Amino acid sequence: MQKRYSPGRACRAEEVPYWDVDTDVAIVGFGAAGSCAAIEARQAGVRVDIFEVASAPGGSASLSGGEVYVGGNGGTDVQREAGFEDSTEDFRRYLMMAGGPAADAERVGLYAEHGVEHFGWLREQGVPFKGTYLPGKWIEPVSDDTLLWSGSEKAWPFSAEARPAPRGHTVQFEGWGGGKLLMEKLSERALALGATAHYDSRALCLVVEEDGSVCGLVVRSQGEERFVRARHGVVLAAGGFIGNAAMVERFAPAAKVCTQLVTGGNDDGSGIRMGISVGAATLNMQEFFATIPFFPPASLVKGIFVNERGQRFINEDAYHGRVAHHVLRQPNGRAWLLVDNEIFGRPMLQEDIEIAAVGESWTEIAEELGLPAGELEHTVAEFNRHAAAGSDPLLRKDAEWLRPLSEPPFAALSYCLDSLEAHAFTLGGLATRPSGEVLDADGNPIAGLYAAGRTACGLPRWGEGYSSGLSLGDSTFFGRMAGRTAAART
Amino acid sequence: MQKRYSPGRACRAEEVPYWDVDTDVAIVGFGAAGSCAAIEARQAGVRVDIFEVASAPGGSASLSGGEVYVGGNGGTDVQREAGFEDSTEDFRRYLMMAGGPAADAERVGLYAEHGVEHFGWLREQGVPFKGTYLPGKWIEPVSDDTLLWSGSEKAWPFSAEARPAPRGHTVQFEGWGGGKLLMEKLSERALALGATAHYDSRALCLVVEEDGSVCGLVVRSQGEERFVRARHGVVLAAGGFIGNAAMVERFAPAAKVCTQLVTGGNDDGSGIRMGISVGAATLNMQEFFATIPFFPPASLVKGIFVNERGQRFINEDAYHGRVAHHVLRQPNGRAWLLVDNEIFGRPMLQEDIEIAAVGESWTEIAEELGLPAGELEHTVAEFNRHAAAGSDPLLRKDAEWLRPLSEPPFAALSYCLDSLEAHAFTLGGLATRPSGEVLDADGNPIAGLYAAGRTACGLPRWGEGYSSGLSLGDSTFFGRMAGRTAAART
Repeated sequence: MQKRYSPGRACRAEEVPYWDVDTDVAIVGFGAAGSCAAIEARQAGVRVDIFEVASAPGGSASLSGGEVYVGGNGGTDVQREAGFEDSTEDFRRYLMMAGGPAADAERVGLYAEHGVEHFGWLREQGVPFKGTYLPGKWIEPVSDDTLLWSGSEKAWPFSAEARPAPRGHTVQFEGWGGGKLLMEKLSERALALGATAHYDSRALCLVVEEDGSVCGLVVRSQGEERFVRARHGVVLAAGGFIGNAAMVERFAPAAKVCTQLVTGGNDDGSGIRMGISVGAATLNMQEFFATIPFFPPASLVKGIFVNERGQRFINEDAYHGRVAHHVLRQPNGRAWLLVDNEIFGRPMLQEDIEIAAVGESWTEIAEELGLPAGELEHTVAEFNRHAAAGSDPLLRKDAEWLRPLSEPPFAALSYCLDSLEAHAFTLGGLATRPSGEVLDADGNPIAGLYAAGRTACGLPRWGEGYSSGLSLGDSTFFGRMAGRTAAART
Repeated sequence: MQKRYSPGRACRAEEVPYWDVDTDVAIVGFGAAGSCAAIEARQAGVRVDIFEVASAPGGSASLSGGEVYVGGNGGTDVQREAGFEDSTEDFRRYLMMAGGPAADAERVGLYAEHGVEHFGWLREQGVPFKGTYLPGKWIEPVSDDTLLWSGSEKAWPFSAEARPAPRGHTVQFEGWGGGKLLMEKLSERALALGATAHYDSRALCLVVEEDGSVCGLVVRSQGEERFVRARHGVVLAAGGFIGNAAMVERFAPAAKVCTQLVTGGNDDGSGIRMGISVGAATLNMQEFFATIPFFPPASLVKGIFVNERGQRFINEDAYHGRVAHHVLRQPNGRAWLLVDNEIFGRPMLQEDIEIAAVGESWTEIAEELGLPAGELEHTVAEFNRHAAAGSDPLLRKDAEWLRPLSEPPFAALSYCLDSLEAHAFTLGGLATRPSGEVLDADGNPIAGLYAAGRTACGLPRWGEGYSSGLSLGDSTFFGRMAGRTAAART
C-alpha cells in the first residue's frame, strides 16, 4: 500500500479495502487497562482482539511496583486485619484533594464506593496479595508485605480533611517489581477467557464511519497494514506520552526537567493522538507525576527543604511526589535538603546526590550556598525551636518527623535541577466519562470510542496529589468500565 | 432542518444541501485577529466573508485598553523619541521569558523581528498613536499618552536577562478604552477593502471534505442555518473561552477563582471546539491571564505581600498579572499586602478591599491575622533592614520601590481568595504554526484551517509572563499571518 497512516489522522471506512480482522471490541494496548477491559468485555460475551505493540503483554504496568490504591467501605479485609478502618467518605475526600483543581467528583465517587469490591475482583483474577502490613515510610516495598502507606494520608493538609489509612495494596512479591506478576495474572486471565492477542502490532490510526463513529483500526504488523473492524468499538489503552519527547515538549514542557522516564517503552502518546484525530478533547495535558527519591533512609524526612531564599516551602513528610513538585518549582530550580549529623544518610535510590555544603554552623552552610545572610539561620532556628516542642506551625509536618537539626556537622544535599534525577510519567489524556466513553469538545461521547489508563485523563490528574497505586488502581478499575461499556454497545 | 449542528462535531461536505455563501476565505469572528486576517486576505485579492455573532465588529478587543506590545529593531519611532533603545535581541529574550515553559521560539523570533514593522502597519490602517511617553507604573492609561511600561521589563528576573524598555503602545484615547477606537479603525479598513461582514451570525460547525480538509462552515443567522463554502479555507478568530463556564471547569479549573471575566461577551470557546472537532491539538488549555489590581496608587507597590506562613513570595514591582498568579497560588489561597501609614492608600480599582488588620506593631498585625508567632516580624524586619540600604536580596525588588515599612499604624490588605476580585481571560487554544495553520496531534497542518487570536495558543501562553498589550499584539500580527496564509492556499 502506498498510503501512510498516522495516529493524528483517522482513516475513513470507505477507504478500507477489506477487513483483515472482524471483531466486536478492539483494544489498543495489553497493559493494565487493556487487560482489564478485555476481561470484562469477554465476560460480557463479545469477541475481543487486543493489539499490542510489544512482543508480550504487560505494558508499563509490568515495570511498576504492582501497587493498587484502594480503600473505603470500612476498609478492605487487609486494611481491617491490620487494624485500620477506612470509610468511603474519608477515601472519597482524600481522592478529591488528590485530584487537585481538576478533580472529577463523579469518577472519584464511583471509585471510592467500589474500591473494596475492585480489590476483591483483582484477587478473583488470580492476583496474589499477602495481606500483611508494612509500617514506616517507603518509596518502594522492601519485603513481601503488601499493605503500605503510599500517599500523603498522614501529612497535612490531607490528614486534616480525611482520616488517614494506608491504602497501597501491593502484589505479593519480594521487593520492587510486583507489577510483573500483576500483569502476568491479568493478561493470562484475559487470554483464558478467550481474548485474542496480536503482538508486535502497532495501531496506526482509527477508522471512522460517515457519521463520525469509530468502527475500527488500522494496525501494522509483520510489515503490513491490517484493517480491523470493531463492531462495538475501540478501547484505547495505549498508555501516556512520557516516551514521546516531541509531545512532552508541546504538551507538558515542565516535565522536561525529569530525566528518568517511567515507561515500559511504548508510552508514545499514540492512543491520545488517535483520540484527538476523531475530535476528542484532552484534559490536563500539562500534568505529570514526578518524584525525587530523597529518602529512604526515612531519617532524611526529618530534614528540611529550603529554597534559594532560605525559606521552607513544603512539609517533607508529604508523599515524595508532592514534595518533588514543590522542589521542582522553586525559584531558579534551586533547593536543598538540610540535615544534621544524626539524621544524615545517603539517599538509597540516588546515592551520588551532591552534597552542596557541609559546615559546623548554619551560617557556614548559608555562606557556602550563597544564600541571603540571616535567612537560613532564622529558618532553622525557628524550625528547631518549634520542633523541640513537637510542632511545626509553618508547614505542619507531623510530630513523628520533628526533631531539631542541632547536631553538627550540618549538610545541605542539593536538589537543584542540575543535580537531581527526577522520575516522571504523564497524567493528561483524553476526556472520558467514568464509563470510558471518550468525549468531544462539547462534552458529548464519540460513538464507538473508549479509553482508559494513562491514555485517558483519569483519577490521577494532579502531580502534587499523586499517591503510589493510583495509576494502577485507576487503570484496572476504569479499564474494566471501558471494556464493559464497549461490549454493551450495539 | 431537523439536524442540529454543534461546534464539537464537524459536518461532512456531502451532507450540505446547497451553499448559501460561496467565498474564498471565511473568517469566524470580527475582532482583532479576524479584522487583520480580513485586511491581509483582501489585499491578497481573494473574496472574504466574516461571520460575527455580535451585531457589530470589535470582539473583546474593543473593550480593551487598545494597547499593543511591540519593540525591537532599535525601537519603534515612539520608543526612540522617548529616549529608549530596544534591540530585537532584548525584545526576543523578554518574550521568551514571558512565554514560560511553553515559549515558542519560532513565533517569538518572528514577532520580535517584525514588531516595529507591524506597528507601522497598524498606523497605516488608520490606528492613531499619539506617540508620547507616560512614565510611572499604571494598570490602565490615565492620559492620552501612548507609550507605557506595561509588563515586568524593569522587574527581576526579566531585568537581569533583557534590557528594559517600555513597549506598551496604546491607541490615542483619553483614559481607558482605546480598544474601541482600535477596532473601529481595523474593522472599517477591512470593510473598505471589500470584506463582507455578516453580523448576528453564529458559526455552528466546520464543514469537512472526504480527505479531512476544511471547506466551509455552517452558520446560524436570522434563525436559519446557512451553508458557507470557503474555497481557500476557514480562519477561526472567535476568541477564547473565559465566557464558557463549563469549558473553564473542564480545561482551566484554576481560573474559577477569578470572578471578573475579561470578555466582550462571546468568548464561548466555540472556535477552539470547532478546531478540536476536526482533529486539532490544543495547547496550554490550563493557562490564563489573571490580575488583581492592587495598585494604583503606585505607592502600594512599596508594600510587601506575605502568605499565611508570614513569608514573602514575589517582588511586588513585577507586572500585576505576574504578582496575581503568585498571590492566587499561596497556601489556602491566603495572602496580604502589608503597608505602613506612609504608603497606604485605597487601591483605586478595588476600593472596598478588606483591611484585615491594623495595628501599631507588626506583632499586633501578625496576631490579628493569626500567623505563626515571630515569622511576620522577622520578615518585615529583614525587609526593612535591607530596604533601608536599597536592596532586596530575597526577591530583588527594584530599589525604586524599596523603603522600610516603619511608620505606624501598619495595615494588612486582604488578598485572600474570598476578598479579591481577580480578572481573567484564557490563554490556551488551538495548536498552530506562526503561519496560522492549525495542527493536528502529530503536528501536521489540517488543510484549510487557520486560527489566530485567543482561539489559538499564541504568543501569550503563560499567566505569569503576561504583559499588557501582548494579546492585541499577537492577535493583530498573527491574525494577519493567518489571513495571508489562507488567501494563498489554492
